Parts: sequence; C-alpha cells; structure tokens
Amino acid sequence: MYRKNVYSDQDLRNSLLMDDSRPRSGLDALFDPRSVAVIGATDDPNRIGGRPLRYLKESGFQGELWPVNPRHDQVQGLEAWSDIGEVPGTIDVAIVAVPASRTLRAVEACAERGVGAAVVFTSGFAETDAVGVARQRRMGEIARSSGMRILGPNCLGVYNAATGFFATFATTLDFYRPMPSPVAIVSQSGAYGSHLAMLARRRRIEVGLWVTTGNECDVTVSECIAWMAGRPEIEVVAAYAEGVQDGSALLASLDAARAHRKRVFFTKTGRSEAGAEAVRSHTAALAGVDAVFDSMLAQAGIVRTYDTEEMLDAAYAASFGVLPSNRRVGFLTVSGGAGVMMVDEAAVQGLEVPPMPDAAQRRLKELLSFCTPRNPVDITAQVFNAPHLVGTFLDTMLDEGDYAAIVIFFTYAASVEFMAKPTLDAVAGVRERHPDRLIVMAMIGADEAVARYEALNVPVFEDPVRAVRTVSALVRAREGLARGPGAGAHTGVHPSGRSYTGGRLDEHEALELLASWGIPAVQARVAPSATEAGHAAMTIGSPVAMKILSPDIDHKTEAGGVALDVAAENAAREHDALVARAASYDASAEIRGTLVAPMVSGVECILGMRRDPAFGPVVMVGSGGILAETIDDVSFRKAPIDRAEASRMIAELAVGGVLEGVRGRPRCDIDALARAVAALSRFAAANADTVESVDVNPFVVLPEGEGGMALDALIVGRTTP
Amino acid sequence: MYRKNVYSDQDLRNSLLMDDSRPRSGLDALFDPRSVAVIGATDDPNRIGGRPLRYLKESGFQGELWPVNPRHDQVQGLEAWSDIGEVPGTIDVAIVAVPASRTLRAVEACAERGVGAAVVFTSGFAETDAVGVARQRRMGEIARSSGMRILGPNCLGVYNAATGFFATFATTLDFYRPMPSPVAIVSQSGAYGSHLAMLARRRRIEVGLWVTTGNECDVTVSECIAWMAGRPEIEVVAAYAEGVQDGSALLASLDAARAHRKRVFFTKTGRSEAGAEAVRSHTAALAGVDAVFDSMLAQAGIVRTYDTEEMLDAAYAASFGVLPSNRRVGFLTVSGGAGVMMVDEAAVQGLEVPPMPDAAQRRLKELLSFCTPRNPVDITAQVFNAPHLVGTFLDTMLDEGDYAAIVIFFTYAASVEFMAKPTLDAVAGVRERHPDRLIVMAMIGADEAVARYEALNVPVFEDPVRAVRTVSALVRAREGLARGPGAGAHTGVHPSGRSYTGGRLDEHEALELLASWGIPAVQARVAPSATEAGHAAMTIGSPVAMKILSPDIDHKTEAGGVALDVAAENAAREHDALVARAASYDASAEIRGTLVAPMVSGVECILGMRRDPAFGPVVMVGSGGILAETIDDVSFRKAPIDRAEASRMIAELAVGGVLEGVRGRPRCDIDALARAVAALSRFAAANADTVESVDVNPFVVLPEGEGGMALDALIVGRTTP
Repeated sequence: MYRKNVYSDQDLRNSLLMDDSRPRSGLDALFDPRSVAVIGATDDPNRIGGRPLRYLKESGFQGELWPVNPRHDQVQGLEAWSDIGEVPGTIDVAIVAVPASRTLRAVEACAERGVGAAVVFTSGFAETDAVGVARQRRMGEIARSSGMRILGPNCLGVYNAATGFFATFATTLDFYRPMPSPVAIVSQSGAYGSHLAMLARRRRIEVGLWVTTGNECDVTVSECIAWMAGRPEIEVVAAYAEGVQDGSALLASLDAARAHRKRVFFTKTGRSEAGAEAVRSHTAALAGVDAVFDSMLAQAGIVRTYDTEEMLDAAYAASFGVLPSNRRVGFLTVSGGAGVMMVDEAAVQGLEVPPMPDAAQRRLKELLSFCTPRNPVDITAQVFNAPHLVGTFLDTMLDEGDYAAIVIFFTYAASVEFMAKPTLDAVAGVRERHPDRLIVMAMIGADEAVARYEALNVPVFEDPVRAVRTVSALVRAREGLARGPGAGAHTGVHPSGRSYTGGRLDEHEALELLASWGIPAVQARVAPSATEAGHAAMTIGSPVAMKILSPDIDHKTEAGGVALDVAAENAAREHDALVARAASYDASAEIRGTLVAPMVSGVECILGMRRDPAFGPVVMVGSGGILAETIDDVSFRKAPIDRAEASRMIAELAVGGVLEGVRGRPRCDIDALARAVAALSRFAAANADTVESVDVNPFVVLPEGEGGMALDALIVGRTTP
Repeated sequence: MYRKNVYSDQDLRNSLLMDDSRPRSGLDALFDPRSVAVIGATDDPNRIGGRPLRYLKESGFQGELWPVNPRHDQVQGLEAWSDIGEVPGTIDVAIVAVPASRTLRAVEACAERGVGAAVVFTSGFAETDAVGVARQRRMGEIARSSGMRILGPNCLGVYNAATGFFATFATTLDFYRPMPSPVAIVSQSGAYGSHLAMLARRRRIEVGLWVTTGNECDVTVSECIAWMAGRPEIEVVAAYAEGVQDGSALLASLDAARAHRKRVFFTKTGRSEAGAEAVRSHTAALAGVDAVFDSMLAQAGIVRTYDTEEMLDAAYAASFGVLPSNRRVGFLTVSGGAGVMMVDEAAVQGLEVPPMPDAAQRRLKELLSFCTPRNPVDITAQVFNAPHLVGTFLDTMLDEGDYAAIVIFFTYAASVEFMAKPTLDAVAGVRERHPDRLIVMAMIGADEAVARYEALNVPVFEDPVRAVRTVSALVRAREGLARGPGAGAHTGVHPSGRSYTGGRLDEHEALELLASWGIPAVQARVAPSATEAGHAAMTIGSPVAMKILSPDIDHKTEAGGVALDVAAENAAREHDALVARAASYDASAEIRGTLVAPMVSGVECILGMRRDPAFGPVVMVGSGGILAETIDDVSFRKAPIDRAEASRMIAELAVGGVLEGVRGRPRCDIDALARAVAALSRFAAANADTVESVDVNPFVVLPEGEGGMALDALIVGRTTP
C-alpha cells in the first residue's frame, strides 16, 4: 500500500522525465524543459530575478541553467551570459524577470533566439492602463508569429516537482519544497494560486505540478488542462479561473481530461454581479453569465466547486484514487449527533442513505446491544468495550448494505490509545477486502495518526460535514467520467426547419418559424380587423387570449397589448381597445392587428437561446411564472443537444419536480418539453450567424401525453452578424 | 490589549467564583459547585468512574471531593465513603458513574441526601428500549419531586474551567486542559459535544464552560442557555441540539441571552427528512418541522448555523467582542482573485460591498500606481515594495469607505519576514484608532504569527470565504441583539373577531370567520341552485370562478369541484356539472351548492397557521402557485405577531422580491399582506385551544394601494383539544 497522493519512489520519479533530451516545443517546453535561461538573474536569492535560480539549484534540476545578466560573469555561482543570444545551447524555457519597460524587448529576443517558451512574471500590462493593454497585445502577437509560447505576463510562473523545475518567485517555496504527486493546480490568479498551494500543503495535499497563467496573453488555463490531460502522471486537476474567453477551447480541454479519466475540480469566481464587476476591474476578463458557465461544466461532466475549501477537499480525496460508483452512502458513527449531521448534509447533496437490510440490523444489534444499526449505524461509545467489532460492522455494512462509500465518524476516539490500533487494523482489513469502495475517516488525530489512514488510501477529515460534501463531489466526478466525450451533443441528421434570414418578425411569424423546427405553437389566428377578431374568437370558443400583433412592440404587457379571458362576444371591441392602446404606446409601431388564441393552462416554462460571449449559442430552459424571476431556476447547454441531454436540463430545475407531479398533481409531458428544447437548440446552432436571442415565454407543458405549446415567441436578430 | 478569548488573569479567574460558600441549588450547583461526590469512583484513573476524580484533582478543584465506593477506604489517594449517606458534608453535585441497573437507586439516594444536582453518565435509558424509557421517566420524576436537578442520563457531563470543576469522563481532557474563557458550549449530544470541544481547541478557541445534556430527563439545553445568560463571564454560547421539546422555554432562554447581550450561535440537526428520521432513532427526540425552528430563531434574533465549522468560526470571531454595526464590508487584498472570491461570498451572504469614494480612490492610486482602489481594494504584490502603506490604506478605507468590517487578505505574505512586522504594526495602529470596527485577517501563518493578531482582537482565518461567511454571522448576531426582548410579538389591544367553536366550516363560512379578524376575502356569493348561480354570475360579471361548497370536501380540485373563467351565461349549467361531479366524488358529502366569485389575478401567496409540537400556534406565509410546492419558500412565527414582524417574514421570502416589483412589474400591496398575516396570527393565538390548522390558499396580493384578498380558506379544528 502506498499513499497515492505522493510519489515517493525514485523510479517513478524518473519515469516522469521525458525519455529523450531533444529540445522541447509548445507546452512541453513550458512544463518539462531540459534547459532554462533566467533573464534578469540576480545574485540576491530573494529578489524576483534571484529566487527562481535559487529554487532550481536547491531542487536539483538536472537540465542546463543559464543566468543572463549583462553586468556579471557569474550569478549565484553559475556562469552568466550577457545576452540571451550568447547562451551556448538550445533554450527550452526562458524566465523573464525584468521591469515592464524592458519586458517586450526581452521577449522579442527570446523569440528570435528560438526559445520554446517564456515565463513572464512582470506586471504592468492589461491589468493597468491603455499602454499596458497595447504592450500585452504586442506580446501575444510575438507568441503567435514566432510559435514561442508565453506564460503571463503578470503571473507567478510554473513548477514541476517531478523534475525540480521551479520557474516561479512564489515565496511559498521558502516554507516547503513540493514533492512529485499526481495532483496539479492550474490558477489564473498568481497570488491566489500560491495561496492555494499553501492551503493544499496544510491540507496534506502534495501538488506536483503548479501553474499560474496571469493575464493570459497566450497560454490559457484551458490549454494547461489540455496538456495535463495527456500526461499519465497527472490524475487530479484543481483549476481556478476568474473568466473564460474561449468557451469552446475550455470544453475541448475538459473533454480531453475526461477522456483520460482525470478528476477535474473547477472553481470559477465572479459568480455574483458584484463579483463579476470585481473581475472586470481586476483582470479585464469577461466573467460572462455565471449560470451559463455552471451549465457548461454540468454538460462537460466536470465538478464545479464554489470555494477553495471545497475544491481542495475534493482534490485531496480524489488523489487517493477511489471514486464511488453510485450515490449510496453508509455512515458508521460513535456519535448519534454526528450521524444526524451527516445525514442532513447527504440530503442537501442529493446522496442516498438507504437503511441496512433488516436481517443485518438484527445481527448487529445482537453483537452490540446499545447500537442503532439502521444507517447511520451508531456503534456508540459501547464500542470502546469491544473494539474488535469495528471491522465486523464495516464488513457487514459493505457486504449487506452495499454502500459505494462509507464515512466513519470516530472523532478523537481513533486516536485514544486503546482504540487506535484496533480501529486502524479494522479499516485496513476492510480497505483490502473492498478495494472499490470509498472509505473516509472523520476523525481528529495527530499527523502521524492521520498519515496511517492515508497510507491505506483512506482520506481523513476533521469535520464530518465536509467529509460528506466531499463524498458528493467524488460521486459527481465519477458520474461525469461515466459520460462519453461530447455526451449530449446532438450529432445525427434531424429534420430542420426554415432559416432565420434577418428582419423583425412579429409573434405569429416567430411562432411559425420555430414550429418549422419542431417547437409546437398554440393555434392562434391573426385578426387584422375587429370583425375578424370576433370571428376568430367565435371559432376558437370563449374565453380567448388576445394580444397586439406588431414586430415593433416587444413588451406587450407593458404596452397594454394583452387581454386574457376575453369572452367571444367581446373580442371585436377588445381588438379595437388593444390597437388603440398600442398606438398610443408607440405611435411609430407597425400594428398588424391582434392575435387571437385559446386560453391554455398548464405548467409554464421558459425556453430560449442566447449567444454567450465565451460559449457561443446556448439553449436555455427554466421555470416560468413570476416567481421564476427571483429564483434563477434556469439551465443552459451549448447548442445543439439531443433529447436525452434536454431531459437532464429539465431534471436540474426546481420546476422539474413540478412537472414530475407534486402533491397529487398529474405528471406533465416532460418528453414534449425536452423535444422542444432539443429542437430549439438545433435552430440555435443552425442560425447562430443571424440570431442573437430567442425567448419562448411561456411554453406551457400539458399533462402527460398531451404535449406542450409555445404561447409567445420573440426572435432578435444579430445586429453585427 | 489582551486576547478576549482567554482569561489569563488570576483576579479575573477568582471573580468567577461565587463569593460565598453556602450550598448551591439548581443549576448553580451543577455549574459551580463547592463540593462533589463521585458515586462509583474507582482507582483506575482511565475508567468512567476514575476519570472525573482524576480530572478534578489535576485541575486543582478547590472544593470538597468525596469518592463513594463501598469496597475501598481510599480512592485515588482520597478518603472514600461506602455510601452517599455517610459523606460528611453538603453535596452540591454528585457524579453518578454506576451501571444502568443501579443508577436509579443511586439517583434516589442522592435525592434523599439532599444533593443539589446529579450528573448521570450512564446510558441504557430512553435511547434503547421500553424498559429504558420507563427508567428514564422515573428519573425525571425523582428530579421534579425532590428538586434535585439531574443532567443526563446518557451524557458526557459538564465542566467549568474557571473553578477546575470537571465532572466528565470525556477523553478529550487527556489531550489538553481547558482554560477559563468567555466561550461556552452547550450540546445535547455527548460524543458530538466532545468532538466540538476538540475542534474548538484546534480552531484556537478556549471553551471555558462546557455541558452535554444527553437524554434530558430533566436539565435541557434551553435551561443551560438561560443559566449562562445570567453569568457575566460568559459572552458567547455555541449551542447544538437535535430536537427541542419545549419551544417556549427555548425562546425564553434565547430572549434572556439576548437581553444580556450574549452572542448565541445555534446549530440544530435533523434539517432533512432523513436527518429527522435519524434523530428519532437516535434520541427519540422529536425533530419538529425544521422550517419552523429556522423561523423561530429568526424571530428570536439568534443566528442559526448549519454546521460545526460555521458555528465554531462564528463563536471564535465573536469571542473577540467586536460585532459590525451594519452590513458594509471592505476588502483589502494582495490578490485580485481572492478579492473576487470574497465579493462573491459577500453577495451570497447579503452583505454590502460599496465602493470607496472617488476622491479616496484617486488618492490611493497616487500612492500605489498598480493598485485597484475600488473595493475590493487590491493593493497587489506592489505593497511588498511599500509595506508602510498598509496602514494608510486601512485608515483610508475605514475613514472614507466607512466600512463596519474589513477583511484583509494577505495570504502568507503577512508571515514573510520583511512584511510581518510592518503589517502587524499597521493592523495594530488601525485596531487602536477604530476600536468599534471588525477587523479580520485572512492569512496563513505559524501559530505565533496568528496569536499576535489575536492579541489585537483580530480574528484570523486561512480561507477568505470562511472569513466573509463569519463576518455575515457576526452582522446577523448584531442585528439580533438590536431587537428588543420579545420583539415582534403582538401585545397591545386589537380588534378581535369571532371565535372558532369547533365543527366543520365550508369555505364561505371559513372566509367570513377570518374576515371578522381582519383578513379580507373575495366577495363571493353562495348559490344553492343553478338559477341562483346564474344570477350571481350575471351580477358579478363574466368571467367568474365557481367552486363546490361543502364542509366535507377539502380538496376541491381533486373532486372536480372547481371551474375557472366561466362565462356568466354558462354559470347555471356549470353549477349542475360541479354538483354532479362532487356527488359522484363523495356520495356522503353535504353539498350546499356552489360559491360564485369574480376572477381575481395578482401575486398568489399562501397564509396559514399550524400547531407546532414544540412551539405551539405558529403563523405562516409563503409563495403561492405550483412552483412553491417544490421550493419551500415559507416563513413562520410564533403567534401572535405585529405588522412589522409580518413584514420581516415577507422580506425573508423569494416571493418578497416579486411583491416588491421585479422587471418593471408594479409593486404589490405588501402592507395589506402583512396586515393579513398579523390578523391571522391573532386569530391563531386566540383560538389555539380549538384550531389545529388554517390554510388560506391563495391569498392574492394586488398592486400597491389595492389591498389583497383570500380566495379560499380551510379551517381544521383540533380533534383532541
């Protein structure tokens, strides 16, 4: 047994080195170089230009090390070169640690010299002012025209503990030296990235590979994840970003990570409006609509974590390699109180806590009279008189309760002298007999005691609630991995409808266009005149809904352009009233009459599509009705998607429960809604060049078997196609 | 300056002792005894009967110590007595550490001897079987008939570090010995209570007073809080309970705590249905409806925490004594990324993050060119070149940004050699100049570094998100303290209506009864016949709503007894159809005809009252409509309440946002809704003996100034009044 979290073995360490010594290119050069030049290298080992050199020397980096400094022959005991042009060999990575005013020139020199990748620490670029923005743009151009990759500017650099490559000035390395491990951290923020590394250390996580991308003039968080996806030694990636510019690149990198069975935990900030505002003033990155990002990760099968603690807990537990195969969780506890807390959190997290089979409960009760054998299985303090029973209880729970994960709450009891060894032995035995189950200890103990459990591949938490939260993250990681690459995307041939070719459509035209794609619409009649409105209402039957028909009036309610529950005999009079109000609301609007439709009642949803600045056309479904406006009950997907994926979107919603039928209400035609969402996603993808947004509000879902229909639709064309 | 968290001063320690030596009674005996007998005392210092004696000796308890053991003359070097009757003095507390079979006899002997309070560790009572339940009931009777207070059974005891009184066998005390401090823990669960103590220790919180109540045959969590409320040395109480039997006692104790300005943080488990189930099988305590408990704490102005970490973080920070006077929070950060994370969490918590005034922003920008001076104020790594600016930035933020709280994110920078002293000095200066502001450090550092900030009354967090979450808890604690005792309860004279005297009321009668209390109802007409239904509909005007009128049919929709949007000319026919359907739904139901009412549209809410098993009559308001059934948007209060308190209930709801007017919708008549809620609460309180529940669904709220009205009402009488 070994702790997965750390590679302690020298052979393993060597296997991480690439097996040849030819020059590196692209991200290979950045993450795994054979030679490093430090431009702006200084003797002072604590200055920005001195630290990386010191770290590289102290860590035993085996490649070439070339300090570049025009004023010294030697730097930190190494022969120094006055200019990068004079360095006597191929440079995989150049670290650029010079003031902002000289940075561009240094980067240009690197590109001319044929350097594989440059790491630019310097700040004073796009995060400051217009001059900085221009400088950064130029730096990106150098990368693209030369093929040299650039990390930064305004970043804290990169390290790869497996090779002793430390291209960073992060002072964290004055506190400890990282060991090789299968856990990687990718952080857009430099300072927060090093904070993460410190917290990880305190959380007993070794971080073997660490990179901060800063202003991302070239290398992005997405690209780093994609590179890690291809590296067998990396198993867990904790990613932190404030904004994502290229959604497709991110999704492709996450697909690659999933294909290689990496466990990725992604924290994106700028969740709130105020937070998004802070992102803008911080990195000038566009935070985008957070709910879209949330849905994109769901679509990609990647676990989004919402804060540092959650992300690091998940990365820590995932580094031991066992993910639960389903949502069934068992709890063994010495405290009934802790049992209740864990069950509460399991419910919040959507985990299942099924009871033990009756026969097994009876058997456990015979073994230990005070125990509560249901689940949580409360072994009580009585276990102190019979520590040998811990293993029996655990085996019984796994064999007969069939839990994919077990959390064992032993508080400090597992550290008390007479309990420590029997408990550890019991867990070791169970671990060996059930290698596929996730076993988690919730306990308080000295580092040595905790390390003994970790050596069994058993993660340890002090707080039982955090333990349960983390089990949930691992369950979701496993569920994500179970999805094939590109899961849920619509691929096959499908009937397609008419194209949107621009121009303003009135509600009737919009409904008809969408209907051609398979989104059913209410059978409404256009009434150019009062007389025709009266006829239409008679044909449809009382009461009817009437709306003003105009391509120029988007907000009909505001314009007084909607009348509900109109008796057929009043329809003609109502027609005139609607037209009069609309004309006074907007005298220049083209008014084509009214639209007369039957009153329809069912569960109201909203369908839509948007062009997301990062992800392109996305399809949306959410709760309708007024409450929806305050509770954000929406789900997005990158268009196009298939019907199964649309069903998953609906299942994510609160209104999903309503549609399933609550409190004796009939189940609604969820399948009809899913078909409409998928159809709208095909329309969105096919018309991405011409359509800015679509709102179908409401789409009314009828009882099962009766379908659903759009009652209103608004299509907005792109102004700059 | 001193760290509030610990009393290091011997005088202070002495002042905590009561100033005389007369016998204690009631909870004074339990928490602050002058003499202790240990029944079942043993020589083995690690057995349950040996530990308390050892702890008491080791801690220098100054009172009398009397081991009771019939088989030994001496126990642990102290003279032992064969029977409690022989003990040569007044016994304030007796610790009972004998097997379950002998416990009752021992407790009876204590009562006969006139012991002040007994601490009963033994388990095997109500948590096991019927025999245990009977034994526990008997134990409670002994307490009530003798006046001797009993803690437990099935508890881990109590300690008071100020006097060295350790009446517990918790093995936590083998790891460390608590010091006197203003922080108390009250836990129903014994094992979880000692886990909390251990975690608190690791969280750098001294817990001076600690008590676990176990099965609560007599002494309850509520009573312990009430006792602490009266103790000047206690400032912070972290309370943990699984169920509350006597809601009024709890509220009274919380009122007392608030009156004495204690900061109470309350964690109650059994939040989920599965958790409530686990509570039942664990302690046989009734978890009650969790949403009611939640609302009761809101009404009491007490902060409910949802897990251990949140509770201990809040207790830790509150122990330093500064609570923010409003919701304005400022962030000073060396990492833009951390700034965004903190702003995100502030938004989740409902804190305000107002920007710095423009002039102040300009001044800071001049001082440090790379900084982002808005809020978060991102001082960037540039501060490393100018550490003397930390104080200037903080003063500017407090003076001109006027934040009630500041979180300073310095990650490990505040521990780096050249930054440590300037940062500490800056914070010390600011702390002194702004004693009323909450200043929180988010940093990573060695214990000594953290202790230096704590000595300034500056709480320290590693995780910035947890820091923000805790600021929110302190803000809410302050807001709670600002409420007067019994705030929101209706007290004055108010017009009251007719009493409910039992029997089944039909909808019309129920609406009329509630109207007599001030709850407006729709103007509906009773139609005993089809003809009368037609007349009523004509008078009201098309379309109308029609419902079957029967005191025997509660679920009218299910019975096919509701027709909406009926044209007046169809009302007579519809009447017959409704009556026919109702008759076939329930042939034995008394059918009084139909109720004909105008169609009313507005924002639908639900009003109601319930008899909560712990808290008695509670009034409820929540979202209406079908989505409400899946999102639990409800708020409760103990009846009766005044209108202002009803307004606070509405503000807690998601539908509160809708009523305020979202996306251009008009503001609704929230005041009318609040009046109706307050009126219903008076009805609920006045008719508590006869009414089991009331549902007003929907109560439709109209635009501002137009009021609101109940469209339907159901009153259910108590079957066992």
